Amino acid sequence: SVPPGVLPLCHPPSAWGRAAWQPLGPLRAPCRAFSNNKILVELDESSGVATMKFKNPPVNSLSLDFLTEFCISLEKLENNRACRGVIFTSAVPKIFSSGLDITEMCGKSTEHYAEFWRAVQEMWLRVYGSNMVTVAAVNGSSPAGGCLIALSCDYRIMVENPKFNIGLNEAQLGIVAPFWFKDTFVNVVGHRIAERSLQLGSLHPAPEAHKCGLVDELVPEEKLQEKAVAVMAQWLALPDHARQLTKSMMRKAVLDRLVAHREEDIQNFISFISKDSIQKSLRMYMEMLKKKKS
Amino acid sequence: SVPPGVLPLCHPPSAWGRAAWQPLGPLRAPCRAFSNNKILVELDESSGVATMKFKNPPVNSLSLDFLTEFCISLEKLENNRACRGVIFTSAVPKIFSSGLDITEMCGKSTEHYAEFWRAVQEMWLRVYGSNMVTVAAVNGSSPAGGCLIALSCDYRIMVENPKFNIGLNEAQLGIVAPFWFKDTFVNVVGHRIAERSLQLGSLHPAPEAHKCGLVDELVPEEKLQEKAVAVMAQWLALPDHARQLTKSMMRKAVLDRLVAHREEDIQNFISFISKDSIQKSLRMYMEMLKKKKS
Amino acid sequence: SVPPGVLPLCHPPSAWGRAAWQPLGPLRAPCRAFSNNKILVELDESSGVATMKFKNPPVNSLSLDFLTEFCISLEKLENNRACRGVIFTSAVPKIFSSGLDITEMCGKSTEHYAEFWRAVQEMWLRVYGSNMVTVAAVNGSSPAGGCLIALSCDYRIMVENPKFNIGLNEAQLGIVAPFWFKDTFVNVVGHRIAERSLQLGSLHPAPEAHKCGLVDELVPEEKLQEKAVAVMAQWLALPDHARQLTKSMMRKAVLDRLVAHREEDIQNFISFISKDSIQKSLRMYMEMLKKKKS
Repeated sequence: SVPPGVLPLCHPPSAWGRAAWQPLGPLRAPCRAFSNNKILVELDESSGVATMKFKNPPVNSLSLDFLTEFCISLEKLENNRACRGVIFTSAVPKIFSSGLDITEMCGKSTEHYAEFWRAVQEMWLRVYGSNMVTVAAVNGSSPAGGCLIALSCDYRIMVENPKFNIGLNEAQLGIVAPFWFKDTFVNVVGHRIAERSLQLGSLHPAPEAHKCGLVDELVPEEKLQEKAVAVMAQWLALPDHARQLTKSMMRKAVLDRLVAHREEDIQNFISFISKDSIQKSLRMYMEMLKKKKS
Repeated sequence: SVPPGVLPLCHPPSAWGRAAWQPLGPLRAPCRAFSNNKILVELDESSGVATMKFKNPPVNSLSLDFLTEFCISLEKLENNRACRGVIFTSAVPKIFSSGLDITEMCGKSTEHYAEFWRAVQEMWLRVYGSNMVTVAAVNGSSPAGGCLIALSCDYRIMVENPKFNIGLNEAQLGIVAPFWFKDTFVNVVGHRIAERSLQLGSLHPAPEAHKCGLVDELVPEEKLQEKAVAVMAQWLALPDHARQLTKSMMRKAVLDRLVAHREEDIQNFISFISKDSIQKSLRMYMEMLKKKKS
Repeated sequence: SVPPGVLPLCHPPSAWGRAAWQPLGPLRAPCRAFSNNKILVELDESSGVATMKFKNPPVNSLSLDFLTEFCISLEKLENNRACRGVIFTSAVPKIFSSGLDITEMCGKSTEHYAEFWRAVQEMWLRVYGSNMVTVAAVNGSSPAGGCLIALSCDYRIMVENPKFNIGLNEAQLGIVAPFWFKDTFVNVVGHRIAERSLQLGSLHPAPEAHKCGLVDELVPEEKLQEKAVAVMAQWLALPDHARQLTKSMMRKAVLDRLVAHREEDIQNFISFISKDSIQKSLRMYMEMLKKKKS
């Protein structure tokens, strides 16, 4: 059951226009209860700019609950004509998002894996295909799925702190980034840099991420919010319709590829993640994280 | 009726060899009278290099007349065995070309829109698929369709004046660059730069255009002609046949895409440009230009 | 007949896993005698790293004998579970490899051309699709096919000597690099640099090759081996399985394209190379090389 006042994910956004993945048909994400407090959403009606601030301590991991709240919040903004742009940032110090929640992928049922993976896909389809201007204000480290959120935006600004790093480091965990993570990455940094970075599972410190084009701009932490607002204003100066059609033209091929292979991608994920060897290596990774914490 | 001495656009160039869009079949561009004085063509028979100098004041806009003359002039050179390369430049100070003539897209008939758009396609197919070496000597600003001509050449040299800018700024006018403008752009600057520049409708000052790869080289205005001739000599040092086949291999996929969707692209253009909202925004843009002038 | 102790090329590597071109089926390369002494292979069992040192003086040209030995040596390493990475380098001073042996393409039978071209394809399929980490330690000039070997590796280190150059210079000889040379090149340097470099048949001095991304790193000659070992260690720190699947995901489309058009590509090569004009220009090129030598 859906909490009152919360739009279920069962209808496509009405203001979609000729958006990138319009031919998808009605969403099939689950309509289920979830804790509605992991993301702080503020909309400045005068500028038409919303901020979605991730607050899922300790590391803003992308749990099923988080992803569900993320998609519903984003859909509400997408359907709100007063909202034309959204800034993603973190309310947790030093971390933007640590990526997919490993506990969702460990020792769970096949049904759970399917539901979780569908939610991950849903998040990406909604951000990469958004009609709104999307800006990532990356105020902390951003591995794996955290990096994917940033890569899916129209523009990436990162705090210049070299202790913060970003990248698709799946290979380091013994797992493989799905093809649509890869496609999104290639569209940002090109084939060569993506090939090397994905194989090495590289986490790039902010200055290196800027140099290889993974982020567009570095700023001191205290200037991040101001800069994100300025960039947003620059993008919103364009007429929405032309900008949206242009964005769709650039991203449609890659969005369509997942839409066409969505169920297959879920099955691939399930069979990969269910392997004993993968389960073992994820458990070892979690043990390591626990020890590190204590 | 075709003026005497002018080749109609009804036959494919005979010297085409295995050129990029050979499978096109006979051209369907109109055989009609036009004013034959908007482009100065000079051929240096000793070097095999022609220059096409645009002279359509005040801003070298790409009117139907201009495009027709352009295609016929280029076809003549393409068919002339004495000609192996062509340099495009402007005879109008401070402007290379201002792009498509907006008056051709405003308050005209459906038939006119179709004829105009076919001529725009024709121009691009001929430049991007040319067997000759093509060098753009960009001696002024070059927005939209003007930028497309430059992007379609083998090499782009621009005057280093930061007041001259270049880019596909269609989004600023509330319109969308067609997919083959986009494909050409991506082939030059890569996906990421194209995505950002197209959505923002960016006009890049010469130094920035050089930095992002949109132009290959900057020179002082007085060195432009000399540099273009030197670059041409470098490219003509290669055996024609191998160079042409290599060029075709690099560009064929993108050329074929328009050839396969040419009529559909014309229909898309007509239905887009016929919209009241688009007509209104083009009229406003023209008013603004008039005021600016006076 | 195959010499004892030498694996024929008739079986796919058993340790292939989900490697890039697994769906190929059994190899069709010839099982024939050849001189087994053009490549020095050393395997350091402790690190799992092999070195293949080309020793085919005077210029390490890729003759049919060389290619056959190359493929068999590489297959043996691929099948050896103790081997996880391979470094390619040259035992001949100042030259990495001069590329395809022109004598194999001049005045020979159609059958010979077919056998030769199949061996060239085989070499590329095996290097570009290798499950091992592949590092090119480029200690000399590396035109055409030599450049292709380097481009097909995971990482390229080149001696910083500006007298050493590298590039796909086929156009300079009046011939055209095949589409899979081009695809490999584009995946490394992007469309624009590839388009220009291929049309001009550019040989890039080491510093320029580094600047345009054709090689990843430059080092003094005396540091080359050490650097190659260090890079290899960095890549081998990743779990093999995830790295291999990631590599396959990045390269599969380009590998599949040749696999799907392999016979057609052989026929194209034969009909092109059999032309009188091409034979004449290759003979002239060989004459020039001979004169240069004496």
